[in-house]
Amino acid sequence: MGEPQQTGQLSRQANLMRPSTLRDMLAAGAPPRLSLAGGLPPPEAFPFDDLAEIAGQLLGEHDIRALQYTSAEGDPRLRAQIAELIGASASRIIVTTGSQQGIDLVGRVLLDPGDVAVVENPAYVGALRALVPTGARVVGVACDDDGMNVDQLDRLLTDGLRPKLCYLCTNFSNPHGATLSTERRHALAALAASYGFVVIEDDQYGRLRFRGEHLPSVASMSDDVVYLSGFSKVVAPGLRVGYLTAPEWLVRPLVLAKQAADLAASSLGQRIVSTLLERPEWWERHLATLRSIYASRADALVSAVGEQLDGRLTVRSPDGGMFAWAEIVDAVDAAVTSAALIDACRVRGLALVPGSEFTVDGDGAFARSLRLSYSTHTPDELCEAVGLMAAAFDDLT
Amino acid sequence: MGEPQQTGQLSRQANLMRPSTLRDMLAAGAPPRLSLAGGLPPPEAFPFDDLAEIAGQLLGEHDIRALQYTSAEGDPRLRAQIAELIGASASRIIVTTGSQQGIDLVGRVLLDPGDVAVVENPAYVGALRALVPTGARVVGVACDDDGMNVDQLDRLLTDGLRPKLCYLCTNFSNPHGATLSTERRHALAALAASYGFVVIEDDQYGRLRFRGEHLPSVASMSDDVVYLSGFSKVVAPGLRVGYLTAPEWLVRPLVLAKQAADLAASSLGQRIVSTLLERPEWWERHLATLRSIYASRADALVSAVGEQLDGRLTVRSPDGGMFAWAEIVDAVDAAVTSAALIDACRVRGLALVPGSEFTVDGDGAFARSLRLSYSTHTPDELCEAVGLMAAAFDDLT
Repeated sequence: MGEPQQTGQLSRQANLMRPSTLRDMLAAGAPPRLSLAGGLPPPEAFPFDDLAEIAGQLLGEHDIRALQYTSAEGDPRLRAQIAELIGASASRIIVTTGSQQGIDLVGRVLLDPGDVAVVENPAYVGALRALVPTGARVVGVACDDDGMNVDQLDRLLTDGLRPKLCYLCTNFSNPHGATLSTERRHALAALAASYGFVVIEDDQYGRLRFRGEHLPSVASMSDDVVYLSGFSKVVAPGLRVGYLTAPEWLVRPLVLAKQAADLAASSLGQRIVSTLLERPEWWERHLATLRSIYASRADALVSAVGEQLDGRLTVRSPDGGMFAWAEIVDAVDAAVTSAALIDACRVRGLALVPGSEFTVDGDGAFARSLRLSYSTHTPDELCEAVGLMAAAFDDLT
Repeated sequence: MGEPQQTGQLSRQANLMRPSTLRDMLAAGAPPRLSLAGGLPPPEAFPFDDLAEIAGQLLGEHDIRALQYTSAEGDPRLRAQIAELIGASASRIIVTTGSQQGIDLVGRVLLDPGDVAVVENPAYVGALRALVPTGARVVGVACDDDGMNVDQLDRLLTDGLRPKLCYLCTNFSNPHGATLSTERRHALAALAASYGFVVIEDDQYGRLRFRGEHLPSVASMSDDVVYLSGFSKVVAPGLRVGYLTAPEWLVRPLVLAKQAADLAASSLGQRIVSTLLERPEWWERHLATLRSIYASRADALVSAVGEQLDGRLTVRSPDGGMFAWAEIVDAVDAAVTSAALIDACRVRGLALVPGSEFTVDGDGAFARSLRLSYSTHTPDELCEAVGLMAAAFDDLT
C-alpha cells in the first residue's frame, strides 16, 4: 500500500483558494449572541407563505418543468421574464446557481494564469475566491464614496495595464457600501470599449435602494458588460436562482461552462421565481417591505454609531443594501486595530468582520476598517451591538 | 471605440470546452416524436404529490433552513442522513449542486494542465466536459461487459502512466450500461493505493438495480475514492441535490472550491430530500416503483431489438439504470455507421445518439455504436422506436 495522499497533490488552483477568515472565526467558538459580521438577508422577510402556496401549486399540478432538468441556459419562460424585467435580450441571459456562479463562470471562461483581472478594493470575498484560483493577477483599484475610483483605473490602463476583466459591485457594494456614480459608470463603459476588457457588473442590491434615485446600469451603456443579479436578496437565497446577461460572443462559452459546472440551476427554484414574476403587485409590496426593513435598520445602526461612538468610528450612511463600511478614527484611538476591536467584541458576544477580509492585495490593508452588516438585527439589537462596540473601545483604551 | 470582443480572448479552458453534439442536433430541427437519445428520468415517476406536501409543510412552517443559505458543505441534518444511508462519516460528505458539480470540483482541485486523468472509454460526456478544460491529458481505458478494463489500466501504470485520478461509473454506466465486477473493484482500489491516484466512483444508478445482486462500492474498499451520487435519478433532477464523499485530505479544498463555485446547494432542495429521508417506507415503495418501470422498459427494448433487429444490432441487456449500449453487427451491415442510421431515423421521427458522442480519444471511435436510453418511453413506444430503426436499416441496405 502506498503513502496516504498529501495536499502536495492539489492543483495550482486549489493552492490558490482563499479560506474564509469569517467562517473559520465563527466555527471556532460558541455562536455569538449578536453579529454584524454576516451578509445574510433577514429571514423574517422571506415570503414563506407565498412560496408555500406557489410550490404547492406547481408540484400539485405536476408541473414537469419544476422537477425535470432544464437546459443549461435556464427555464425559457424565466429567461423571457428576466429579459423584460431588466430590458435585455433573452438570448443573452443565463440563469445561474446563485450569482456567485456567474463570477466563477466568467472567470473560468476569460482568465488564464498570468492574465490580469481588475477588482475594486475592498472587494466581495466571493469574487476573490472565484477569480484568484484562475491564476490571474488580481489588481485592486481603490474605492471612495462614489464607488471604484475609475480615474485610478484609467491611469493604470494608460500606464500599460491590460486586464481581461474588471469586477465591481455597482450598487451598495459588498463590502464597501458605496454606489458607483453615474459619471464613473460612463467612464468605465468607455474604458472597457477602448481597452477591450469585460466589465463584471455585480448588482445584487440595486433593488434594495431605500433612498435616492436609481442609477442606470453600466450594462445599459456598453455591450462589453456581464451583468450579474439574482433573487437571493429579494426573494430568498436558498432557492439559488441568479442570472447573468453577457455579450453575444460570451454566451456560448458561458453556457458550455455552466453545463460542465452543474448542468443547470434548480428547476423548482426557477419555476417558483417565474411564478412570482407573474405578480407585479406582489413585487411592489414585497420590495417596499424589504426597503422599509433595511432602511430602519441602516438608520438605527448609523444613529447608534453617531450617538455612542462619535469621533471614534466613522460609518458611511447607506442608501440601500445591507452593508455599512466603518473606520476607526485615527485621532482618538491611534492604537486600536479592527482585529483588536473584534477580539474585544467577541468576548462580549458580538461578532464583527474585519475590513482586511476584503482586501485584494493581502495583509495590512484596511487594518482599521470593518464591514458592518445590519440586515439581520432589529433596530434595538443594533443599538445594543453598537453599545458593545463602545464598551470594547473602552476596554482597549 | 475598440473592436468588438473576439473569441480569441477566451481562456485556454474555454477553448477546451466540449460542445454537445446531442444538444446541437436536437436544437437543429423539430423535436422528434420518439427519442432514445436523452438521459432523463421518467417524469411520470416524479413524486409530485409527496414533494408538494413536503414543500408546503416546510415553507408553511416557516422553516428558515429551507430558504436561508446553508454552509458550503450542506445542511447538517442532510449530511448526517446521507452518512447513515451510505455508511460514511458525515465529516467527509459535501452536498453538491447535482452530481455533475462533484466531478467539476474534483477536477479543479486535483488537475493542472499536463496532468493525467484516466477515464473509462466510452465515458459520461459530463465528466469529459468537466475534466478536459482543466488542461489535463485525458486517457481512455476500454470497457467490456464487466465495466472498465482494470487490467489495461494496470498495464498503462506499469508502463509509467501516472494519473492524478481515474473516473468511472461503477453501476450501469452512462453510457456503456455495464457494471464493474467485484474483482475489478478490488483491483482498482489496490492500484489507487499503489500508485497514489484518486478514484472518482460515479454511482447515480446503483439504487436502480432491477436484477442481480448489489455490489460493494470501491469507496468501501479504499480511502482514496471520491464517491459521487445524488437524488436526481431517485427523486427528481430539478432539485439539484447531489453529494460526494471524499478522502479526509480532500474535504477542505473541495469545500473551498464549492464556496467559490456557487456558495452552497439549494436549501429548499436539501430540506425536501432530508424530509424524504425520514420516511424509510416511502423509499422502499418509491424505489420499487422506479425499478419496476425501468425493468419493464429495459426488457421491452431488448426484446424488440431481438425480434426486429436480430443479427443486425446487438444490445447488452441491462440489470439496472437507464442505458443499453448497442452495436451494429459487422457481418450483415458492413457499410452502416451509427451516423447514417441516426440520419435515417431522424427522418422517421426518432432521435438517437451516436456512441462517438462518448469517446475519450476523439473522432473515429465507436462509429458503429449507439447509446440507447429507454427511460422516458413506454414499452409500446420502445417497440415502435425499434421498428423505426429496423425500417431505417432497410433504407440503408
